Amino acid sequence: MRKLTCIATMFLVAATMMAQNVKKSFTLNDLLSGGSTFWNLQPEYMYSTWWGDVPLELTVDQVSRIASDGSSDEVLFTAQDLNDILGEKLVRSCTSLSFPYADQSVVKLQTARELVLIDFQKKTVVWRGSLAEGASELTWNPVSRNLAYCIGSNVWVQTSDGQRIQVTMDGNDDVVYGHSVSRDEFGISSGLFWSPDGQRLAYYKKDQSRIPSYPQVDITQRISQTTFDKYPMAGEESEDVCVGIFDVSTQKSLWLNNPKPQTDYMTNLSWAPDSRKLYVFELNRDQDFMQLFGYDALSGQKDASPVLEERHPKYVEPLHTLSFLPWDATKAVMQTRRDNWNHLYLIDLAKNSYPEWHQAEGGGTFCDHVAVRLLTPGDFEVRDFLGFNNKEKSVVFVGNVTHPLRATIHQAPLSGKGKMKQLSADDGVHSATLSATGAQLIDTYSSPTVPRSVCLTTLKSGKSVNLLTASDPWAEYNVPEISSGSIKAADGTTDLYYRLIKPVNFDSTKKYPTVVYVYGGPHAHNVQASRGYWFRGWEIYMAQLGYVIFVLDNRGSQYRGLRFEQSTFRHLGEEEMKDQLCGVEFLKSLPYVDANRLGVHGWSYGGFMTTNLMCTYPEVFKVGVAGGPVIDWKYYEVMYGERYMDRPEQNPDGYARCSLLPKAKNLQGRLQIIFGYNDPTCVPQHTLSFIRACIDAGTQPDLFTYPGDGHNMFGTDQIHLHERITRYFEDYLKTAQ
Amino acid sequence: MRKLTCIATMFLVAATMMAQNVKKSFTLNDLLSGGSTFWNLQPEYMYSTWWGDVPLELTVDQVSRIASDGSSDEVLFTAQDLNDILGEKLVRSCTSLSFPYADQSVVKLQTARELVLIDFQKKTVVWRGSLAEGASELTWNPVSRNLAYCIGSNVWVQTSDGQRIQVTMDGNDDVVYGHSVSRDEFGISSGLFWSPDGQRLAYYKKDQSRIPSYPQVDITQRISQTTFDKYPMAGEESEDVCVGIFDVSTQKSLWLNNPKPQTDYMTNLSWAPDSRKLYVFELNRDQDFMQLFGYDALSGQKDASPVLEERHPKYVEPLHTLSFLPWDATKAVMQTRRDNWNHLYLIDLAKNSYPEWHQAEGGGTFCDHVAVRLLTPGDFEVRDFLGFNNKEKSVVFVGNVTHPLRATIHQAPLSGKGKMKQLSADDGVHSATLSATGAQLIDTYSSPTVPRSVCLTTLKSGKSVNLLTASDPWAEYNVPEISSGSIKAADGTTDLYYRLIKPVNFDSTKKYPTVVYVYGGPHAHNVQASRGYWFRGWEIYMAQLGYVIFVLDNRGSQYRGLRFEQSTFRHLGEEEMKDQLCGVEFLKSLPYVDANRLGVHGWSYGGFMTTNLMCTYPEVFKVGVAGGPVIDWKYYEVMYGERYMDRPEQNPDGYARCSLLPKAKNLQGRLQIIFGYNDPTCVPQHTLSFIRACIDAGTQPDLFTYPGDGHNMFGTDQIHLHERITRYFEDYLKTAQ
Repeated sequence: MRKLTCIATMFLVAATMMAQNVKKSFTLNDLLSGGSTFWNLQPEYMYSTWWGDVPLELTVDQVSRIASDGSSDEVLFTAQDLNDILGEKLVRSCTSLSFPYADQSVVKLQTARELVLIDFQKKTVVWRGSLAEGASELTWNPVSRNLAYCIGSNVWVQTSDGQRIQVTMDGNDDVVYGHSVSRDEFGISSGLFWSPDGQRLAYYKKDQSRIPSYPQVDITQRISQTTFDKYPMAGEESEDVCVGIFDVSTQKSLWLNNPKPQTDYMTNLSWAPDSRKLYVFELNRDQDFMQLFGYDALSGQKDASPVLEERHPKYVEPLHTLSFLPWDATKAVMQTRRDNWNHLYLIDLAKNSYPEWHQAEGGGTFCDHVAVRLLTPGDFEVRDFLGFNNKEKSVVFVGNVTHPLRATIHQAPLSGKGKMKQLSADDGVHSATLSATGAQLIDTYSSPTVPRSVCLTTLKSGKSVNLLTASDPWAEYNVPEISSGSIKAADGTTDLYYRLIKPVNFDSTKKYPTVVYVYGGPHAHNVQASRGYWFRGWEIYMAQLGYVIFVLDNRGSQYRGLRFEQSTFRHLGEEEMKDQLCGVEFLKSLPYVDANRLGVHGWSYGGFMTTNLMCTYPEVFKVGVAGGPVIDWKYYEVMYGERYMDRPEQNPDGYARCSLLPKAKNLQGRLQIIFGYNDPTCVPQHTLSFIRACIDAGTQPDLFTYPGDGHNMFGTDQIHLHERITRYFEDYLKTAQ
Repeated sequence: MRKLTCIATMFLVAATMMAQNVKKSFTLNDLLSGGSTFWNLQPEYMYSTWWGDVPLELTVDQVSRIASDGSSDEVLFTAQDLNDILGEKLVRSCTSLSFPYADQSVVKLQTARELVLIDFQKKTVVWRGSLAEGASELTWNPVSRNLAYCIGSNVWVQTSDGQRIQVTMDGNDDVVYGHSVSRDEFGISSGLFWSPDGQRLAYYKKDQSRIPSYPQVDITQRISQTTFDKYPMAGEESEDVCVGIFDVSTQKSLWLNNPKPQTDYMTNLSWAPDSRKLYVFELNRDQDFMQLFGYDALSGQKDASPVLEERHPKYVEPLHTLSFLPWDATKAVMQTRRDNWNHLYLIDLAKNSYPEWHQAEGGGTFCDHVAVRLLTPGDFEVRDFLGFNNKEKSVVFVGNVTHPLRATIHQAPLSGKGKMKQLSADDGVHSATLSATGAQLIDTYSSPTVPRSVCLTTLKSGKSVNLLTASDPWAEYNVPEISSGSIKAADGTTDLYYRLIKPVNFDSTKKYPTVVYVYGGPHAHNVQASRGYWFRGWEIYMAQLGYVIFVLDNRGSQYRGLRFEQSTFRHLGEEEMKDQLCGVEFLKSLPYVDANRLGVHGWSYGGFMTTNLMCTYPEVFKVGVAGGPVIDWKYYEVMYGERYMDRPEQNPDGYARCSLLPKAKNLQGRLQIIFGYNDPTCVPQHTLSFIRACIDAGTQPDLFTYPGDGHNMFGTDQIHLHERITRYFEDYLKTAQ
């Protein structure tokens, strides 16, 4: 029904970045975030925040009010002012200050040792809360000023008057309270959740005693020592999760009374505005059946029936909490891809609906027990829900409404009457923060031709004032031409978008070695209509060295809807590779691409893709560099892995076909695999098993590892890594016959 | 005093191996012992053994007596004969049979399940002894027919009538009985020692509870698992060793009453012929003070005074047991390098000597409490003590008497009167087995021009009959020219010997890339006057690919005396590298060596040398491949490491200077380090620490690992490894500028 509105042709017009004459060249330090000179060469940035509906600009030295004309001459206070009030120099920069109360002239400061509230008009310290030594997972509630945190595996609460209460007692390496669960999948990133009034604390309990431990070797000790990461591999024993609620007034905890297996997932905990009810998205281990349930926060009792239910023959993936309407506690906004696209829906909890199962556009079924209504119709994805405009009774969001590669800002009425309204420029990729009542927003964006621009937009009028237009930080550099366009996927119908970078000092009569950079997995994309089409710095470096760089978001990647993503279900890698081969066919059509000198590089899922491409199409790719690859999905974790592959016993054929171990024998070109020696995500067993398989098969991959590093390299290690990757292509691809 | 008789000049004449015309080329499978075709291309071999003084030839099918004319027509028995006697097919090959009794027609067969004695004349089974399931360290005494063995960490004895007695009860992972101790240093290779009469069993107890465990990761499990190797690193806690004696008749054990610290070494346990006394070489942890003590085997009481003592400011290294004269239980032969060269000495235990400390030629001091007399004077080393000639009252040994690179067979009188007598051809490297009374020996040797030759020599007459002269197995192959010669060491005076291999189809007008293969450490040498100067198969492969190969035994290496070896004491690597650089200077003098394309390769100590050379002389070596290297001696084991380096706290400067970690920053050329992922000898911490140091310093080594392999690679992994090593030189050295 909903078709992708393809306006890709405009991207075929190359968006050349600064093609001037006598220019500097980049070093890797200039181009990578770990580099010493990287930040000097980034577009100018502006720190801003909201004090209620008042926009503020934050600098190191001061906080200023942004006027309606965009000027920020009115200084609210300086760092020196705050330090004078405090009587000591605690504020070193104003850029991380926040303003928790719309109606009070109070600024919040967090230091390593305490939280401080300062009234910057009355010039007094309003409140101080010390931070316990060794505390992690700090979560503060501005209404009650209660603070929750963890010491090791136990939860503590510190009340606003400084009383410290140990909430859980028996936490240890196996039983962990108050931390994120489910390996941060399903949108989970924390384990402590204050009720709106700050009097009740919901917290996760994770029992991981049955999960085997993966050994990680620390070579920096006098004699190498092993630490053990609890790592649930696909199909194996996983964690048990439940949710407790601690009541600060009674100092008692209770457990949500959920009769489902504790191996089910409990995600996106959402407090009702009255702090008496907690909503939980519940998902079975198979990840094909989701129910949203409410729990009484005072008794732990589960509601008799769910709010809504979703099933899908592939998978359901709840990723977002409920957002209750600020003016109506009976209604909330949720996100789901039930209709293929990720959209906002209004849930009317007070309005029961006869529970019937319906077929959904996304290929699954749903059953709503209350009234649920789509707010954001259209063939696009909501990328970010920004909040509500209280006055106009609307939702505000970022979505790829105007083009799959763009992210623009829109407003949709909650009433269901009236049209969506666009609140940003048509092009580019926007992010925004909304003021307290949603009257205004600060919109930061870039596009292929705009390095960075910030504006203040008033929603009612739709008018914007510019706050910042960054100049091109690369004006003095010899920058390669970066363009984008679309090709058809291997299914013959789906549009896929690419980024193409031509070598610096491009000569159309030459043939260049060409490197495909690939990720290819779900929940990520590599091409969008932001600055330089979202280039990665290393690509610029390679273009300087005379390479064509090509990046294609294949089916399975992000922001293209559920069907697009789920085309890879139970056979990860196969459709993705077919699409990448369409990319190769496109490259071969370009007269300046040397099809005999094709390389490929990717990390993580992209390492899986790179290794897979090298072993599946040895006649296509001469040289590959794979980082931190998945080699066999049975070595990957339960939560992510079983979503896309099911459990090994459910999908033995898929696991066998998608394993790279049997493909080790096919390796012909030069493949270097690089991994963090202490990678807790794609554990070293992946790479080492592949190396063993190659040895047994008599093929010769190359290998490198970063002792002490995890799944990615940062800082100087990142520079070293990219020198290494570059050298490999220089050694073997540039001179390949 | 004793000077090296240098006759090296003759080796300067190239010993070209088979320079014919239309020839085959080798594969790595032809040249490496792990290769599928390796054994087809080895010189013919002959299995032989002794039945008392009767020489026997063993083949798969039969055992024949070797006549005095060298023929072996007289078949003693066939495998079929034995199987007929046994009534089942237990004998599949006769090559591993032995003849434990000089005066009985009894052959000993060992199967997986039992020991069997068969009278091959009477055609009867004389005795059978079953082997307990899971038994290791099997040690059988032919006199009593008692059998000792270990089950796990405990010692058991099985008497000749089949009774099984558990000798130790509390063995476990920490406390280990009956196994080798001191990590097989000091000549130790077993932990069970029968007295000559087979009624008393001496055994080691090793308490390793204080030794930290090195984690080794097994990636073949469903989820990687760790096993822990007890690994005592230099300067750290080590093992406690003591010696027990079990008396079979009383079924009781006692401990040798040694008041010294149990961290001292107790080595080379030697039973007196009367089975009532056990001699032990005792060495302090500092390894600079050795005492030979006798213990009463019935009481465990230590003798009041030692037999002899040796001290050395560097180290003393007892490596050999006592050998008592078969006809005089008061006298024994020992080996020591006290006078610089490893020589045989006669100890007269019955003849006390006033204990005075004397300065020794080897740089140390000694104090003999009984009469001790040198038996083998001369500037050479005894390489192997073969035994006694009972009739002539002499010792028979292999030594580099005629040239440092040779190993010839000699006889020396025990009386001290008369001269040594040479029992073998002058050239080549000989090994031999002596008959029961020493009347005859079977001498197997090769030389640069003789692939393999076996002869039977009668000691009295000195006459030999040829048993086998192997033809050249490589007659059909294009074999490179292999030569040897000597250069001066960096000290300006010491002769060092090298092997030089020229490329196949050598053209003297060309300049060739050249690879130095190096080991360089103590207790090993690489050049000797055996077939092809003891080439390694890979060198032939490289010569085929157009490389010059050069191998030099630097100071510190084997069979050149104590001072030669100890020149490296407390600063391992430094003198060795200086000598290797003398080798490079020599190479530069050769018109066909391309000094701009020098590579280096070595394993273990040679991996240390390779990495060290690459980082110390980056302007000399372009490409290196280092295998299983030591990187920092503090990560190496106590026994070997502290001998040469002392403990880190005693020699902090030496450890710092000899560590390669600070040199990581100097790396310029291409260096690939390869290690067994489960190496228990040079633990992976060495290589990984170096890789980390390189990353931190911004240098770029290459890396590979063999998961599941230890310190060396065997079978197909060995082939894979050498393909890999070769490819690296092909990639980077051949085309280097």
